[in-house]
Amino acid sequence: VKFAKVQIRYVFETHRNQDYVVGSLELAGETGAGIYHGSWPRFNYGKIVEDEQKFPIGALELKAIYTPGHTLGCVSYVVTDLESGNAPVLAFTGDTLFVDDVGRTDFGGPEKRREWSERLYESIFQKLLPLGDQVIVLPAHGGGSLCGSNIADREVTTIGLERRMNPVLQLSRQKFIEFKVNEHHEYPPYFRMMEKLNVEGARPFGHGPSLRALNPSEFKNEISQGALVVDTRAPPAFGAGHIEGSYNAAMAMLGLVGWALPYDKPLILILPHQKSLDYVARNLARIGYDNLRGYLTPSIVSWYKSALPTQQLEMITAPDLKERLCHNDWIVLDVRSRDEWIRGHVKDSLNIYFGQLEKRLEELPTGRRLAVMCESGIRASFACSILLRAGIRKICNVLGGMAAWKNAKYPIDKTS
Amino acid sequence: VKFAKVQIRYVFETHRNQDYVVGSLELAGETGAGIYHGSWPRFNYGKIVEDEQKFPIGALELKAIYTPGHTLGCVSYVVTDLESGNAPVLAFTGDTLFVDDVGRTDFGGPEKRREWSERLYESIFQKLLPLGDQVIVLPAHGGGSLCGSNIADREVTTIGLERRMNPVLQLSRQKFIEFKVNEHHEYPPYFRMMEKLNVEGARPFGHGPSLRALNPSEFKNEISQGALVVDTRAPPAFGAGHIEGSYNAAMAMLGLVGWALPYDKPLILILPHQKSLDYVARNLARIGYDNLRGYLTPSIVSWYKSALPTQQLEMITAPDLKERLCHNDWIVLDVRSRDEWIRGHVKDSLNIYFGQLEKRLEELPTGRRLAVMCESGIRASFACSILLRAGIRKICNVLGGMAAWKNAKYPIDKTS
Amino acid sequence: VKFAKVQIRYVFETHRNQDYVVGSLELAGETGAGIYHGSWPRFNYGKIVEDEQKFPIGALELKAIYTPGHTLGCVSYVVTDLESGNAPVLAFTGDTLFVDDVGRTDFGGPEKRREWSERLYESIFQKLLPLGDQVIVLPAHGGGSLCGSNIADREVTTIGLERRMNPVLQLSRQKFIEFKVNEHHEYPPYFRMMEKLNVEGARPFGHGPSLRALNPSEFKNEISQGALVVDTRAPPAFGAGHIEGSYNAAMAMLGLVGWALPYDKPLILILPHQKSLDYVARNLARIGYDNLRGYLTPSIVSWYKSALPTQQLEMITAPDLKERLCHNDWIVLDVRSRDEWIRGHVKDSLNIYFGQLEKRLEELPTGRRLAVMCESGIRASFACSILLRAGIRKICNVLGGMAAWKNAKYPIDKTS
Amino acid sequence: VKFAKVQIRYVFETHRNQDYVVGSLELAGETGAGIYHGSWPRFNYGKIVEDEQKFPIGALELKAIYTPGHTLGCVSYVVTDLESGNAPVLAFTGDTLFVDDVGRTDFGGPEKRREWSERLYESIFQKLLPLGDQVIVLPAHGGGSLCGSNIADREVTTIGLERRMNPVLQLSRQKFIEFKVNEHHEYPPYFRMMEKLNVEGARPFGHGPSLRALNPSEFKNEISQGALVVDTRAPPAFGAGHIEGSYNAAMAMLGLVGWALPYDKPLILILPHQKSLDYVARNLARIGYDNLRGYLTPSIVSWYKSALPTQQLEMITAPDLKERLCHNDWIVLDVRSRDEWIRGHVKDSLNIYFGQLEKRLEELPTGRRLAVMCESGIRASFACSILLRAGIRKICNVLGGMAAWKNAKYPIDKTS
Repeated sequence: VKFAKVQIRYVFETHRNQDYVVGSLELAGETGAGIYHGSWPRFNYGKIVEDEQKFPIGALELKAIYTPGHTLGCVSYVVTDLESGNAPVLAFTGDTLFVDDVGRTDFGGPEKRREWSERLYESIFQKLLPLGDQVIVLPAHGGGSLCGSNIADREVTTIGLERRMNPVLQLSRQKFIEFKVNEHHEYPPYFRMMEKLNVEGARPFGHGPSLRALNPSEFKNEISQGALVVDTRAPPAFGAGHIEGSYNAAMAMLGLVGWALPYDKPLILILPHQKSLDYVARNLARIGYDNLRGYLTPSIVSWYKSALPTQQLEMITAPDLKERLCHNDWIVLDVRSRDEWIRGHVKDSLNIYFGQLEKRLEELPTGRRLAVMCESGIRASFACSILLRAGIRKICNVLGGMAAWKNAKYPIDKTS
Repeated sequence: VKFAKVQIRYVFETHRNQDYVVGSLELAGETGAGIYHGSWPRFNYGKIVEDEQKFPIGALELKAIYTPGHTLGCVSYVVTDLESGNAPVLAFTGDTLFVDDVGRTDFGGPEKRREWSERLYESIFQKLLPLGDQVIVLPAHGGGSLCGSNIADREVTTIGLERRMNPVLQLSRQKFIEFKVNEHHEYPPYFRMMEKLNVEGARPFGHGPSLRALNPSEFKNEISQGALVVDTRAPPAFGAGHIEGSYNAAMAMLGLVGWALPYDKPLILILPHQKSLDYVARNLARIGYDNLRGYLTPSIVSWYKSALPTQQLEMITAPDLKERLCHNDWIVLDVRSRDEWIRGHVKDSLNIYFGQLEKRLEELPTGRRLAVMCESGIRASFACSILLRAGIRKICNVLGGMAAWKNAKYPIDKTS
Repeated sequence: VKFAKVQIRYVFETHRNQDYVVGSLELAGETGAGIYHGSWPRFNYGKIVEDEQKFPIGALELKAIYTPGHTLGCVSYVVTDLESGNAPVLAFTGDTLFVDDVGRTDFGGPEKRREWSERLYESIFQKLLPLGDQVIVLPAHGGGSLCGSNIADREVTTIGLERRMNPVLQLSRQKFIEFKVNEHHEYPPYFRMMEKLNVEGARPFGHGPSLRALNPSEFKNEISQGALVVDTRAPPAFGAGHIEGSYNAAMAMLGLVGWALPYDKPLILILPHQKSLDYVARNLARIGYDNLRGYLTPSIVSWYKSALPTQQLEMITAPDLKERLCHNDWIVLDVRSRDEWIRGHVKDSLNIYFGQLEKRLEELPTGRRLAVMCESGIRASFACSILLRAGIRKICNVLGGMAAWKNAKYPIDKTS
Repeated sequence: VKFAKVQIRYVFETHRNQDYVVGSLELAGETGAGIYHGSWPRFNYGKIVEDEQKFPIGALELKAIYTPGHTLGCVSYVVTDLESGNAPVLAFTGDTLFVDDVGRTDFGGPEKRREWSERLYESIFQKLLPLGDQVIVLPAHGGGSLCGSNIADREVTTIGLERRMNPVLQLSRQKFIEFKVNEHHEYPPYFRMMEKLNVEGARPFGHGPSLRALNPSEFKNEISQGALVVDTRAPPAFGAGHIEGSYNAAMAMLGLVGWALPYDKPLILILPHQKSLDYVARNLARIGYDNLRGYLTPSIVSWYKSALPTQQLEMITAPDLKERLCHNDWIVLDVRSRDEWIRGHVKDSLNIYFGQLEKRLEELPTGRRLAVMCESGIRASFACSILLRAGIRKICNVLGGMAAWKNAKYPIDKTS
């Protein structure tokens, strides 16, 4: 820890997060900062900020405004630069307002969903938009986050930009509410753990004994004692040779582990490169997987060289797939979300979301070989690792997934 | 040079800068990027961008719009995010529009000033404000820059914020123009060199033989061969013991050298710490002083230990000053700008702007001791070093300057 | 370029290197340092250092001593710390003396080899060992270098350690010379280019336009215009899906390219991760491949997704290999060096060093499938990419190579 | 904390250190490493290593050998590279053997000093030198350390170099012992605290709430509540204007605080530059001062500008001093060590070591002005800050100290 040159006095939370472990407690512990939350749920640490409460920060003034909807306790923080004048300059809108999207309203359960959607509408239209078109908006999530459906890649916006271009804000009050009530969202199992950790206050990570570099025999020993293997290499490398039982969560999508791996078993890692260790360990810890026992050193090659059992997963190209589908024994298992599947899929493909695959194995047709697909091949490889663990071996992964199929101009089916 | 992970294809210039050496040519040389300028003046490198010319950059579209006024060739660049819609998202406004201020209109000389001021008004009110309140604005300069009068410290703004709070934009067209025509600006001598280098294209810096670490006898030798000493330590350290003839431009205000040092002599440096070398050398080069011969190593202490001649400059406190002014032989020389002086000064003080001091030495009263003051002591120390070089030795610098005087609640005179 | 806090006054070369591009000229250009070489060959830049020439460096004294043998112009540099006394403290022994090994003597050609071996013996026994056991030795190469046969992994040693433990120094003069005359060394083709560049003085790298990020269609376009693809991913990833015609030189062994790729064609890159760009580009430039046109962005996945033609190379495990060898149509192609092959190989395997493979393709048996092996799989994958380019497609690479075979306790043949 | 790519399994201590807080416990806490100590004193943590105990570390073998003398529990660690052979390669000699010096033998008190000196002789001559001239030696301290008298600047050595050139090892056994028994050493008060912390195991630093940035009024408030001010600027800057009561320990010699500052009061800092914060805080914590409350922000200038009371300390040059000494009211107070003073001082100067000054104030002549001197001015400035705190104000510091006096060729007295 470096001694800070900036004094951090406050940690303001916009809401109880579900998709990662919040570091407020650790940051406060190192800086002496005060933590402020909204009034729902009841956090085990920090203070509750009041609606309209103001905090002077040098020449700036930060004001909390309650913006419930995504949760009952959501707070936005609006900053004014008193040296320039009274018009608000900046708002941290948390999960209330995103770039091109708004927050989910399904975390209260089905019975609360309509009410929460209504409250979200009021928060946006009666609290945020009136701040003025000129206000810079910094939301809590960006493109690709599970906390929205279609958040744009751009990270910064303004009230005026959202008022004019955010598609959800173009709807009437009634249509907005219907849309939010009926919108489909995934709810990965690790969200439950994040809720718990973020309300209780997670212990700091990174200060305990670090994970160990394991040679192949030590690595094998950990497996025999119950550790689960997370192989973070890209799918092609995983396909060419991996350890039996391992999960393939490529570094670009480490969050996949949250859909299938239990929290009560230690994890051991296969890394694309030893330099990836810090990134991988830190990001697993951010979604609660901090029981990391070690990683194979110097790389998977040491496993190969030790002549330890190595399993393969066939990788095929889109043209290969096209040809195989002429034969009756092959079927496509499309592990994308229902929405993605509806937007276009291979004819006669079976759609089971990868996150539900483990529980829906019995839906798989017997006696058929499975060509597993997602959009690019990464989620499909994770799905394949689940299938392999279940003993389903006549499977392959498609390089480039549906994107390759589409770009090859092969036929797309949009019927559901 | 690192191999870039981002591809830089374009370097867009907003205008011919006067206050630092632009690195476009060096950046383009390393990346193969194309350089685009406005149509005035005629640059020796790059291409002229057309008004309304568009450039696709992934999902973004960048459009040049001519916004003359600060110079005849000023261009702003407006970015649209086509994935979100057609409303402009972002504008790089160069020296046309700042946070809480607008660009200078005096660089065309007195005879052009009214015309340029009118053009600036049209550019802002007919080109920029119509983009909409929602547009994020990134100007070319921030607080403290000589390219404005009262630019705020905040670095980002929006069209809506400026429309509402920028004091200059609250004026009527006629008052805006009168204000700009009569506004007082400093024009440091190095601006002339920056103009020349930026039109011709300065050679890359940092790739020639680097400056040498000089021991005291080598340092003394450089002085005897004509090198000028720039002492970049803070004023109190300079006061306690410095090399005769050296200029005191504290690291926090290195740009001071541009007001008095010629470009045709080599410079040698006194650093507060050897680690400061890169910062100091880089920032001197940015205003054209790239003929740096070396620096004293390991620090000024080696000079002291060598028993080489060391000169002192008395530092006094505000209470000391108050007492001395009871005696007739002391007078305050206030080296701040006329505007600062008018806002409050010590009674009977003489105001000569530090940048003009070298040429106005004859205005100094003979037979009087000078307590030199600026706001904090940094510019005063630079002024003192000019006086000492001119043989005027009965001087002192006031620790904390006018700020200390004011905070001590001593009387302030506002008559001019 | 950062402004240096240490003054570099001299660049001392121990000898004309053959295995990488020396940066002396670039370093001297940035620092003003003087470059010193031995008297053979005639370099186009720098000065010749004299035998016994001394250089004061603060309290240290550096002395050049001629130690010919590896080349006629080899120089060692011995450092004394005059503050402690007259005993030499440190020697930079270049390619004359390594940890557990000594320099090659074959670069003068067969007719000079005996003479050079004799001179090497004299240099070591009459010049270096007499410096005393206490001298710390820093050689020019470490473990794995082609400039020795069995250089140890340890990077630092002393004269006393080498006198006692270096196996070559335990030989009598006669046996030493016979050993050096008959020792087998590889001579990769790029050595010839390194000789030329190091004598002439290579131009600085990294300051020209940097390589471009290429999307799949741009990448394909470069291929059609003659660029060669270097795929720097690990062999399993390469096997699972690569671009036809590409060479697989895994990041851990980038130097492989020097054995087969011409210098007159532009290269384009496949990277394991975009962060690897700087490492890969820098290391290719160090062996003279600085005509790098670009790299596929963001990764090979964009190629897959574009449905562009993708080729595969079968990867098999050691048990797979064992089983296949029961069938008559499979044969092992062992691409390791003769020495490695003699120390143990799969029975009936064919040994062609990977560096000679391109020129010895006609030795391959027709009508047989080839299981290509090296020690771990990296060189084998490079060899496979050469075979694939030659249209030989019934091949596979063995994961873990001979190491896996040995660790599986499968039979090893040592007859040659 | 970064997740380590190297596995740290052992922390080996050579002895109980006295001059800084050892980080073994913190390192072990983060890595799970085992800590090993010698058998004296009894540490509250870690294990006792046995004499001749061996530890395999890959291809290396590390062996502990007891080398008492500096303390009874000193251990050296000898490393062999089994891949090369059996000759020891490297020894970590702790405080037993330094470059050009050997360990102190006075920490057991006067009654043990002869015995410990004898044991040190045996350890060096019967344990270390027999390892052989070829062994690389890495000692625990370098030049300038209080743990030796004349440790050289060079950081690495070999047994052979020390055997030949270490001046203490050239003595006969009897002379060695006499020399060690009579050698003069300083014993700064903070050594006592280091002993305690290192035996008990200090708590980790840097993880508690960090120090606060304090504005002048907050800073003043801390002073009024008992915090001590440590001004880490260089002496000239301190002289020109500092806060009354502050200690001047320049960044280059932060350890000075250990001679006079109590451990039970909070400290607040004046920094030469805000960037220095991490360095200063970390190094104060290393000698046990971890009760740091804050630092003045952004710099001392904010104090000056607030018109808060500012005290000055006159700085004079060597020629100034020479002139003043013609007057009877000036006397030189030389605060260097007795040894330094004997090697040459200003005639009639009074020698009181700066570390004892606080307790020997009554020895100062009344009615005389004091020109305080050390070698360069840094220790003198610390001494001046002690004098000022004691109300002795007619003092000045000499820029460049005795070094300047000598280089000015002024008369030197060597009588004691």
